[in-house]
Amino acid sequence: MPVRKPVLNPPFNVVRASHVEIGVCDLARSRAFYVDCLGLLVTEETADAIYLRAVEERNHHSIVLHRSREPMVHALGFKVASEEDLDRAAFWFGRKNLPVSFREPPYQGRTLRTADIFGMPLDFCFRMDQAERMLQKYAAYQGARIQRIDHLNCFTPDVQASYDFYSDIGFKLTEYTETDDPDPRLWAVWLHRKGNVHDLAFTNGSGPRLHHVGVWTASALEILHICDVMATCGYVANMERGPGRHGISNAFFLYVRDPDGHRVELFTSDYLTVDPDLEPIRWSLRDPQRQTLWGHPAPKSWFEEGSVFPGVAVREPVLAAQPIVAR
Amino acid sequence: MPVRKPVLNPPFNVVRASHVEIGVCDLARSRAFYVDCLGLLVTEETADAIYLRAVEERNHHSIVLHRSREPMVHALGFKVASEEDLDRAAFWFGRKNLPVSFREPPYQGRTLRTADIFGMPLDFCFRMDQAERMLQKYAAYQGARIQRIDHLNCFTPDVQASYDFYSDIGFKLTEYTETDDPDPRLWAVWLHRKGNVHDLAFTNGSGPRLHHVGVWTASALEILHICDVMATCGYVANMERGPGRHGISNAFFLYVRDPDGHRVELFTSDYLTVDPDLEPIRWSLRDPQRQTLWGHPAPKSWFEEGSVFPGVAVREPVLAAQPIVAR
Amino acid sequence: MPVRKPVLNPPFNVVRASHVEIGVCDLARSRAFYVDCLGLLVTEETADAIYLRAVEERNHHSIVLHRSREPMVHALGFKVASEEDLDRAAFWFGRKNLPVSFREPPYQGRTLRTADIFGMPLDFCFRMDQAERMLQKYAAYQGARIQRIDHLNCFTPDVQASYDFYSDIGFKLTEYTETDDPDPRLWAVWLHRKGNVHDLAFTNGSGPRLHHVGVWTASALEILHICDVMATCGYVANMERGPGRHGISNAFFLYVRDPDGHRVELFTSDYLTVDPDLEPIRWSLRDPQRQTLWGHPAPKSWFEEGSVFPGVAVREPVLAAQPIVAR
Amino acid sequence: MPVRKPVLNPPFNVVRASHVEIGVCDLARSRAFYVDCLGLLVTEETADAIYLRAVEERNHHSIVLHRSREPMVHALGFKVASEEDLDRAAFWFGRKNLPVSFREPPYQGRTLRTADIFGMPLDFCFRMDQAERMLQKYAAYQGARIQRIDHLNCFTPDVQASYDFYSDIGFKLTEYTETDDPDPRLWAVWLHRKGNVHDLAFTNGSGPRLHHVGVWTASALEILHICDVMATCGYVANMERGPGRHGISNAFFLYVRDPDGHRVELFTSDYLTVDPDLEPIRWSLRDPQRQTLWGHPAPKSWFEEGSVFPGVAVREPVLAAQPIVAR
Repeated sequence: MPVRKPVLNPPFNVVRASHVEIGVCDLARSRAFYVDCLGLLVTEETADAIYLRAVEERNHHSIVLHRSREPMVHALGFKVASEEDLDRAAFWFGRKNLPVSFREPPYQGRTLRTADIFGMPLDFCFRMDQAERMLQKYAAYQGARIQRIDHLNCFTPDVQASYDFYSDIGFKLTEYTETDDPDPRLWAVWLHRKGNVHDLAFTNGSGPRLHHVGVWTASALEILHICDVMATCGYVANMERGPGRHGISNAFFLYVRDPDGHRVELFTSDYLTVDPDLEPIRWSLRDPQRQTLWGHPAPKSWFEEGSVFPGVAVREPVLAAQPIVAR
Repeated sequence: MPVRKPVLNPPFNVVRASHVEIGVCDLARSRAFYVDCLGLLVTEETADAIYLRAVEERNHHSIVLHRSREPMVHALGFKVASEEDLDRAAFWFGRKNLPVSFREPPYQGRTLRTADIFGMPLDFCFRMDQAERMLQKYAAYQGARIQRIDHLNCFTPDVQASYDFYSDIGFKLTEYTETDDPDPRLWAVWLHRKGNVHDLAFTNGSGPRLHHVGVWTASALEILHICDVMATCGYVANMERGPGRHGISNAFFLYVRDPDGHRVELFTSDYLTVDPDLEPIRWSLRDPQRQTLWGHPAPKSWFEEGSVFPGVAVREPVLAAQPIVAR
Repeated sequence: MPVRKPVLNPPFNVVRASHVEIGVCDLARSRAFYVDCLGLLVTEETADAIYLRAVEERNHHSIVLHRSREPMVHALGFKVASEEDLDRAAFWFGRKNLPVSFREPPYQGRTLRTADIFGMPLDFCFRMDQAERMLQKYAAYQGARIQRIDHLNCFTPDVQASYDFYSDIGFKLTEYTETDDPDPRLWAVWLHRKGNVHDLAFTNGSGPRLHHVGVWTASALEILHICDVMATCGYVANMERGPGRHGISNAFFLYVRDPDGHRVELFTSDYLTVDPDLEPIRWSLRDPQRQTLWGHPAPKSWFEEGSVFPGVAVREPVLAAQPIVAR
Repeated sequence: MPVRKPVLNPPFNVVRASHVEIGVCDLARSRAFYVDCLGLLVTEETADAIYLRAVEERNHHSIVLHRSREPMVHALGFKVASEEDLDRAAFWFGRKNLPVSFREPPYQGRTLRTADIFGMPLDFCFRMDQAERMLQKYAAYQGARIQRIDHLNCFTPDVQASYDFYSDIGFKLTEYTETDDPDPRLWAVWLHRKGNVHDLAFTNGSGPRLHHVGVWTASALEILHICDVMATCGYVANMERGPGRHGISNAFFLYVRDPDGHRVELFTSDYLTVDPDLEPIRWSLRDPQRQTLWGHPAPKSWFEEGSVFPGVAVREPVLAAQPIVAR
C-alpha cells in the first residue's frame, strides 16, 4: 500500500512553501508580465533581480526574478519555525548524505541550501525582512489581485520515492492519484504543511523539474478578470490551461506561462486540512474529472513541459502510465 | 457592402425575443434538467407541457416544453408593442406571400404564426398572462439563478438574406462576422430590438435551425456555479462549450445541451446598444478571439448541430467558409 | 389616481440619459476622485474641463467636469434618436413657453438647451464624437470598473407635476412611492426611456436639484472593491450610504459624494423594462424595505442634500410626508 | 506591555475550534433558520437534537442544536491533535484546579469537559464520526453556501486574563485592540491555532458569554445573497450588523441572530497566519475603521448582547472603556 501515516513529530518543522527564485532572460520583459499584467508588488529591484510579493504578504519576497542566461529555477524556498529548525534540518540532510551549506541571501536570514534525493535544490530559512502590510491598501490591488504564494508543484521521476522522502520530514498527504493496476502505483501526490491542500505536489514525469508556482486569489472573479486582461494585452498565447475547476483539490485554476516558459497557477477555493486524522482522497488516473471537474482535458504541454534546476540531471519517469490529454 | 442602415420606422414594432416552444421526448427528464438543475421556475404544468420562466420574468412563460415524439422547436416567439402591431405584422408578412394565421395559445393573447423566407416559424404576440414577481423572492433562486430569456440564435443557409429580411422589420445590427475575401461576405450577424447585443442572431450553416436559446444571469459566478452543479449531477457531457468570454458581444458564456440536444447559452455581461447611431463592430472570420477572447476554439458540434423546426426543409449554406474549430 | 398610461408616441424621441455637466471648484481634486479613485477614463482634458467616460462608452463623454467658482450642475443631458428629434423637441418646449436655444458644445453635435417647468436645465443632442472602444481593453479597467452612465435622480418640489411633465414626453413609469393617505400622493417616481428601471427619477424635496448621477457596474463585487479603496485612500467620509440593496429597483448600490458634495450612485442589478405593458410597482412610503431591502435606513443627508442648478430657484416641496431616516 | 511571545511548545496540542453545542427553545424554528435559510447540512436529527455541518466539513457536526428550556451555549468545542493530547489537557487543567471530566457524546470520541478561569465550559476531543464529503456535491449548496466553522468569539470580564490563559495553552495573537491610555490596556484579542486570524477571540464585556460563532463562506457574494434571502424570508430583523468589512482581520462580515438570539457571523477573506514570527497588529479602541473599515459603527446590541453558559456567573468587565457605537 503506497499511502503512509503522517509523521506527526518530524525531525524539523517546515511551516510552508514560502518563496522561489526564478532565472529569467530579460528582467524588463518579466517585470511587464509579473508586475504590470499579473499585478504582483515590487518590494525591491536591483540591476540583476526583482523581489516580488503579493498583497497579503509581509515577508519581503515570495517570487524572486534573477537575470539569467537560460530560464531555470534556482531553488524552492520553505520557511521553518525557528533558527534551531535550520540546524536540525542541516543535521538531517547531512545524515542522508545530501549537500548542506548555509548562505545569507539579501533580505532574508541564515538560509540552508540543500537538495532532495533527486537533486532538486531546496532552501530553508526562518527570518526574512518584513515589508509594509498592503492587505488594506486596496488601491495597490492590480491585475489578478494575487494574495499570497501557496504551493510548488514538481515533476518527479518517482512519485513514490518523492512522497516517502517528504513524508519523512513531515509533509502530509491530502489527495493522490493512483494507477488502476491490481497493485496500484502512485502517479501524483499533494502534500501540505500549512493546513490547506498543498505546499508541495509531485506528478509523474521527467524530473526533477518545477511544474508550477501556485499563487492564491480571493475569488474566481479575479481569475476571470486576469484572463480578460491577458487576452487583450498580448498574452493570449501565455494562457495554457483553464480557467477551470480541478477535481483534485477543488481549486478553481488558470495556468499561465511567463515569458521564459515558467508556469504559474492562479487558483482559489481549496479547503482546510489541519485535522491530523484527515483522510487523504484517492483519485483514479483514468477519472476524467480528476484533472478538470468540468471535463476539459489538459493540453499536452501541461503534462510535458517544466522548468529545470541548474546542473540537475533530469531522469525519465519510472511509470509509463499516461493521463487523458487533449488532442 | 453587406451592412445596411437600420430601419428606424419599421412596419410593425417588435419589442424583444420573448419565448420559445420546444418539443422534448420525455417531460420528466427535461424538467429535471431545466428546473432541478438549471433552476428555472415552473409557472404551470400540464400532462403535455411545462411552462417555465426565469426569476425576473413577470410574463407567464419564456420557455415552453411540449411533449413530442422527436426533438424539435415549434416556433420562435417575439413580443410586439401592441395588439395593432399584430395586424400590421400580419399585413406585412401576407404581402410577402408568407403564411399568416392567428391562434390563442394557453396563457397568452392573440398570436400571429408566420414564417420567414426560409420557412422558420415565428410567433408574435402582445399579451401574456402575468405571473407573480419573483425577483425579490430570493429564496426561490436556484441553480444558475437565471434572470430572463435574452435571445435566439439560428443557423441560416444565407446570412445576407436573413439579415436583409430581419433588417426590414427593424432588427438592428450590433456586431457581425465577415469573410476576408476582397469582396467580403457576411458569415454571422447579431441583431437586436431591446437594446443589448441581440434578440436574434444568424450564423452560416445548414438551416433554418435553432442554434440556441440564450438566457441571462446576473454575474459570471452564477455560471461557474452551474458548471460545478452540472459536473457533479450527471450532466458533465451536457456541457458543450465554455465557460469562456466571447470576443463578439463580450459575453461570458456557457453552452449546455438539454436531454434532447437542444442548446441553451447561459450568459452575462454584454453592453447597452440603444443609441440609433451605434456603429456595428466588424470581426474577421479568421480572428481567433472572435469566438473566444481567451483563445479556446469551439468544438465541432457547436458549429454543426442545431434544433430543427417541424416540417421545415434544411438547406445547405451558400457560404463554404469555415471558422476555426477545436480538434 | 396619480399613475397614468405611458405615452407610446411621444412628441420627440429621447433615447436615454446620456451625460451631465458638473461644476467643480478644483479640477485636480475632482480628477483624483473620479479618475484615480473611481476609475473613470479621461477622453479629453483642457485647462477648464475634463471629459470623462466609462469603459463601455463609445460616446466622447458622459460626465464633464467644468472648473467653477461654486459647485453646481449645468445641465442634465439626454440623447435623442435623430437630428429631427431636436427640432421637434424645440418646437414642443417652445409651445410650452419654456426657454429654447441651440448650442454646439465641444465634441458633440447641435444641442438644444431648454428647461422643465421648475427651471431644471436640460440638454438634448443626437450626435457626439466617438471615442475608442475600451470595453475589451481590460487593462484599462480601474477602480470601480464603471461601465456606463445609467440615470439622473432629482429632487422636485412636486413629484406629481414632474411625473406628468416627463410622461408627456414619453418617459415611462417603472416603480413609484406613494403616501399612505386615503387619497395617496406620489412621493417618488422612477422613469425610463432605455429599457431598465430608470433614466430619470424624482423624489419629493426642495428642488429642482440633482440628487445623484447613477453609474452602472457589472457586479456587486466592483462596488465592494471601491468601498475598500475609498475607505483606505482618504475617502471614507465620502461614502454616504451603502453598500446595500434597494427594495425599489432591486439595485445593489453605493452612494458617494465627490469633493464638491455632488452625489454619485454606483449600482448594479436592476431589470429589463422594455415591455410596453409592464405594470409599475407601487411602494408605500412607510415600507422600511423600500429604501433598503436589508432594513438599514438612509442617513438624513441623503434625503436633504443635493446639487443646485445655476440661477434656478429652489422651492419647498408641496408634500410634507417624510420617509424613515437613520437616527 | 500586555502582548506576550507565543508559546511554541504548549502543554497539549489544540488543532482548531471545531464545534459548539447550542441550546435552543424550538428545534423546528431553529432548523428553519440554520438549514432552510442559512443552508447548513443536517448530518443527523433526533427528537432532542440536530447535528449540523457545512459543505466542506467531513466531521459529523460543527454546530449541534439541543432542545432547551432557555437559550444557552453548553460548551465551546476544540479538536486536539491526538488522544494523548486529551490526557495532557486533563492533567494541565487539573493542575490549575479547574474541573475535569470525560464524556463520550454521540458521534464523537472521548471528550474532555473542563472550563477556563471564568468558568467558560470547554470541550476537547480528537475523534469524531466522519460524514460524506459534500464539497463537490454542488447541488447540495444552499443559502449562504457555508463551507466550515471558523471561530468562537466571547465576551470576557478581563481580556488580559483570558489572553494570558489561552496563550499558555498555545493560542497565538494575530490582532488586538488597546485603549489609548499612557499605560494601554487590552480591550480585545484575536487568537488562532489553525493558521488564519482566529479560532478564539475575546472582547471586553460582561462575561463569560459567547458573542458569536463564526462560519466561513467562499466569497462576499454568498454573504450578499444571504442578505437578500433573509430580508425576503421574514428574517430582516435577524440581520444585526453588516454586511461590511472589518478593519480588524480584514473580514467581510454579516452578523445575524438566530431565533433564540444566538449570534452567527458569516465571514470571508481573512489571511494566512502560520508564520511563527507573524507580528500581531495593534488597533486603537478609538480608531473608527477598526470595527468597520467603511466607517459604519456597530449597533449597541452588538456590544452588549451574548449567549450565556448554563450555571456560569456573568461578571462585569474590569475595563470601562467603550468603543464607538451607532447612535
